[in-house]
Amino acid sequence: MMTEEFTRLQDRKGRASLKWQRYEQQDVIPMWVADMDLPAPQAVREALGKAVELGALGYGEVPPRLVDAFLNWCQQQYGWQPMPEELVWLPGVVPGFNLAVEALTKADDQILVQTPVYPPIRVLGKLRQRAQQDLPLKPPSEGESQWSLQVEQLAAALEDKTSALVLCNPQNPTGRCYSPEELKELARLAAAKKLLVISDEIWADLLLKPEARHLPYPAVSNEAAQHSITLMAPSKTFNVAGLSCAVAIIPNPELREPFRKAMRGLMPDMNYMGILAAEAAWTKGAAWLQDLKQHLNNNLDLLEAWLQNPDHPRRQLIGYCRPEATFVAWLDVSRLELENPWQAFLDAGVALSPGEAFGDDHYLRLNFGCPAAQLEAALERMHQVIG
Amino acid sequence: MMTEEFTRLQDRKGRASLKWQRYEQQDVIPMWVADMDLPAPQAVREALGKAVELGALGYGEVPPRLVDAFLNWCQQQYGWQPMPEELVWLPGVVPGFNLAVEALTKADDQILVQTPVYPPIRVLGKLRQRAQQDLPLKPPSEGESQWSLQVEQLAAALEDKTSALVLCNPQNPTGRCYSPEELKELARLAAAKKLLVISDEIWADLLLKPEARHLPYPAVSNEAAQHSITLMAPSKTFNVAGLSCAVAIIPNPELREPFRKAMRGLMPDMNYMGILAAEAAWTKGAAWLQDLKQHLNNNLDLLEAWLQNPDHPRRQLIGYCRPEATFVAWLDVSRLELENPWQAFLDAGVALSPGEAFGDDHYLRLNFGCPAAQLEAALERMHQVIG
Ligand SMILES: Cc1ncc(COP(=O)(O)O)c(C=O)c1O
Ligand SMILES: Cc1ncc(COP(=O)(O)O)c(C=O)c1O
Repeated sequence: MMTEEFTRLQDRKGRASLKWQRYEQQDVIPMWVADMDLPAPQAVREALGKAVELGALGYGEVPPRLVDAFLNWCQQQYGWQPMPEELVWLPGVVPGFNLAVEALTKADDQILVQTPVYPPIRVLGKLRQRAQQDLPLKPPSEGESQWSLQVEQLAAALEDKTSALVLCNPQNPTGRCYSPEELKELARLAAAKKLLVISDEIWADLLLKPEARHLPYPAVSNEAAQHSITLMAPSKTFNVAGLSCAVAIIPNPELREPFRKAMRGLMPDMNYMGILAAEAAWTKGAAWLQDLKQHLNNNLDLLEAWLQNPDHPRRQLIGYCRPEATFVAWLDVSRLELENPWQAFLDAGVALSPGEAFGDDHYLRLNFGCPAAQLEAALERMHQVIG
Repeated sequence: MMTEEFTRLQDRKGRASLKWQRYEQQDVIPMWVADMDLPAPQAVREALGKAVELGALGYGEVPPRLVDAFLNWCQQQYGWQPMPEELVWLPGVVPGFNLAVEALTKADDQILVQTPVYPPIRVLGKLRQRAQQDLPLKPPSEGESQWSLQVEQLAAALEDKTSALVLCNPQNPTGRCYSPEELKELARLAAAKKLLVISDEIWADLLLKPEARHLPYPAVSNEAAQHSITLMAPSKTFNVAGLSCAVAIIPNPELREPFRKAMRGLMPDMNYMGILAAEAAWTKGAAWLQDLKQHLNNNLDLLEAWLQNPDHPRRQLIGYCRPEATFVAWLDVSRLELENPWQAFLDAGVALSPGEAFGDDHYLRLNFGCPAAQLEAALERMHQVIG
């Protein structure tokens, strides 16, 4: 049943979907924006369906039940729980980190960001009128299997005016899930240098590598909890990104209060559908998530088999390391020596995300959160370009 | 069929409704927060139901169809249309006027507000750290039937640092729908004094007085269009306030561009359900709205008959003038000489909005957007307090 739902192709044309609308008039398979062409869990659809049927769709308010559902989810998934009073509900993770910079850094502060990274993080300083330093993450070199956080290099790069660091963990687009050791080292640095850490953990639930464990930043140490704001959401996990529900965990009241104050009036009321979806997802979505992760791992196997197929040696020019988390693959296409790789694949009927937007134009990002048949169809088209 | 839906009592307890949750454990009829205990139009529920059934609830994007639907709605309801490029979509009207003050006034500017008014407008200067001047609207005196805008008094009160004026039209809580003459006079003043006008027109569709016509502020004159930002939404009209969909009309690019710039990153993406609901409502909701207005007028008749019932002379101590628009009645309860009128009614099992929050503690606001039986039950309880 579950498996069946993950195989059914979704027709999202003509349905006001950001991902599908851009190329609606063309024969293009959209493999870009990070939502999935898979249905949300049955329990979520039922909760929303019930509300729609009853029909009064006025103002929602986070009920105590939703707080409990989130705390239980954290316990179950990460073996850790925030305190209820530390939570600040938000209409999105992006508004959350923008508001954090606005409310918790000063006009002449500098923020530090590691690239490649989710485009709204990359442009954060520019949008909020703060100086920003971009440091590169270290790509896997010979003998390593993953990108690394490079805390030493971070430490060396810090300037006096650097007051905040934006962490993205699990990392979009590289799929890295940072280790406790890396995070502890980072937390020590942040504590020593009095940095605010803004930790975007929207991908926390989508761990694909069986041994991977997500360590929420505020769970790293008491100091880490006190100097951080952590952002989570059901959006990616349960494919409800369109419903505007997210939550910040801000253990330190000296950060939480100014953050709350800055929100007032500017942030919309919590979306009614988002509240209902989040509650259903966190309460009843654990088994579905297991199935989803299996499905995503199968898709990754499919992608890897395709990349490594010995009959097509040019595909092996593509640099790739298997993501530990997320449903995106970060592909180094520079050795294909295409003039404009993004355009070349689009011309062949596949829309990928251009690496440039993340800060590295050697790459393209492929979203594999879809039925296997859709991924296969996209790969077949990509084959036309690569051979 | 339609009429039947307006008679059915909604059970919104336990459903994450802001209006119902506050008093969930008590025997209280909630007649406060401005959403309706009535179902949204069938067409809206169908559009949402379809999306929920398909199940991929990722990022939405306003489709050209929604723009057309809104333009046609404006034509049909107000005999006026903005230009498509003047529209800026927003997750709410309140974020809209907060962002307008943030982006379009300077730190030492003063804003002007007329009271009584919707609480988030009343606290706008405080939240956005601007000086604010509160001027009273003129209550109806002998021989007049309505509150009035008092442009002359406004003109006299303006100070050099006053750079923006917040208009609420139709007005919450008084139910006033301003006349073309009043608005023209205001627009002349604003043009002469180079004021920005922020016009909150969220109630524009809910005209109850048969002769009332809503004149959108940017339709008053070309000058008015150029010095204003106007905020509209399907939220009140179709009871979808929980879905976070609103739109700003900003004809002047010198206002629109800084507004857009301030939005980036801070405002969440347009909610997927809000997009679908708005399109269905504006495309197919006109007949339903006619029925709704009839229903609301019937409820007003019921309220007036109750207030004026000669068998209960104390009820006539309540000051009241029939609202031209909205689904709220603004009741002057000062002559009842209750110590704490809001608490007295709450103790009797009816939650009203305290006038104090709107800037006048002589009043209470009663939301009559509900089935007649609910209004009757509330009035019966209020009778216990008044006699
Ligand atoms: C790292 C990261 N943060 C945040 C978001 C989006 O957050 P929201 O839609 O809640 O603003 C995404 C979506 O792709 C993401 O990858
Ligand atoms: C005058 C006025 N403006 C705005 C709102 C709410 O707008 P939104 O929910 O879109 O922020 C209300 C709700 O009662 C209102 O009365």
